[in-house]
Amino acid sequence: MLVIGELINGMYKQIGEAISKKDKKIIQSVAKSQLENGADALDVNVGPASLNQLDDMKWLIEAVGEVTDKPISIDSPKPKIIEEVLPLVKNKIIINSADAGDEKLDALLPLAKKYNARLISLTMDKKQGVPRDRYVRAELAAKIVSKALEVGLNVENIYLDPIVLPVNVVQPQAIEVLESIKEFKVLSDPPPKTVVGLSNVSQGTKTRSLINRTFVVMAISMGLDAAIIDPLDKDLMDTVITAELIMNKNIYCESFLEAYRKK
Amino acid sequence: MLVIGELINGMYKQIGEAISKKDKKIIQSVAKSQLENGADALDVNVGPASLNQLDDMKWLIEAVGEVTDKPISIDSPKPKIIEEVLPLVKNKIIINSADAGDEKLDALLPLAKKYNARLISLTMDKKQGVPRDRYVRAELAAKIVSKALEVGLNVENIYLDPIVLPVNVVQPQAIEVLESIKEFKVLSDPPPKTVVGLSNVSQGTKTRSLINRTFVVMAISMGLDAAIIDPLDKDLMDTVITAELIMNKNIYCESFLEAYRKK
Repeated sequence: MLVIGELINGMYKQIGEAISKKDKKIIQSVAKSQLENGADALDVNVGPASLNQLDDMKWLIEAVGEVTDKPISIDSPKPKIIEEVLPLVKNKIIINSADAGDEKLDALLPLAKKYNARLISLTMDKKQGVPRDRYVRAELAAKIVSKALEVGLNVENIYLDPIVLPVNVVQPQAIEVLESIKEFKVLSDPPPKTVVGLSNVSQGTKTRSLINRTFVVMAISMGLDAAIIDPLDKDLMDTVITAELIMNKNIYCESFLEAYRKK
Repeated sequence: MLVIGELINGMYKQIGEAISKKDKKIIQSVAKSQLENGADALDVNVGPASLNQLDDMKWLIEAVGEVTDKPISIDSPKPKIIEEVLPLVKNKIIINSADAGDEKLDALLPLAKKYNARLISLTMDKKQGVPRDRYVRAELAAKIVSKALEVGLNVENIYLDPIVLPVNVVQPQAIEVLESIKEFKVLSDPPPKTVVGLSNVSQGTKTRSLINRTFVVMAISMGLDAAIIDPLDKDLMDTVITAELIMNKNIYCESFLEAYRKK
């Protein structure tokens, strides 16, 4: 599974301050520690408090690009910002994110094709909001896949996100999300990829890591391809690695946890 | 999920000694601590070293029955011993276990019906041994269900066990077992139940609890109904409770872990 580190996000106090002070060391240290702990890619998001989102995103991408060649996930709600920064990225690119609305898809699908980037796309749109069940999610996912095919984007570069919701608020949605992960895989051949923003499932609970790691195991057993997570949560990463082992994706050896981290 | 405590088994040194010395206090203390930590039923097994298996089993059942009304799982490879002890059990009964061979099914299915007991049945037989994939497991499961229907046993009293194998020896079998749990549920309507002997998945590994709890989450997401586990493994029980929460089987509250244990 593709582990996308979530920690370079301006909504975290330390990162927000580092962005406003242009303190590259902090950003680069968080980038490196995520990679050392098993991240395969790094999400970068300037956060809602940024006053110069475009400049801040350019700076973040440069700071991260100086310390790693691993893929960067350009995380912005504004397609225009994504479009402006794409030519500057020397790493492989994940665009985060489109949704099922025409506005974002029309803007971002051609960019994903042009830059040979992967595109995370939420199965929601302005009209329907967050879907109430797996069926609406599948309907919106089908629209995204079909539009990707229209512009000639390789469907395997589409990462469908069924939108994980907090289990303490809408408990029955967890199963809908899990079933969606499985159902998205039959939308096309080759199938699209799937991704979740994991931490949302435990928002507002007292046992965040436990709920996160239990949910991610279920998602992995449904065939999840990628997750945006905190790779510094060691229990969570141990669980992800073990889930991949059980799914026969890593080869067993006595020290399989260490072997994965060193790969 | 029905949590069947595995600790009253003569293969554990402390229990083996208690059985040979007829020390009820040890047995009853292990029974109580399993129940306090979330076990819904208790497996009892005299172990391979017992010289008087019938007498020892009678004594074990009496010792456990003195401290709890919860179901007892009579765990013996010998149908004759099970038959002899059944009239003595005042608790609800789980018979552990039949397999898909005629010999055990012909002996134990009528007993399960007579005593209104649940019957754990392994999807293996002498001829085929442990099945190599989900298809052989489903074939043997279908035979068990069909024989249960013949004797008029309620199919919901059948607990099919797809036989968990050590991930360090036969890694690809884990997925076969998980898929079997899902497939067994479509064999009849109402469907049979499913059960696993969990600890076997991590046999011989250095990270037993981590592998056990990761595997059980996957099994729960496939619809597992029961598991024979160590309820004193707190991380494991926390994970089981959280998996049930995500599957919408327990209602969320801030202290859902404590609430489950007090239920």
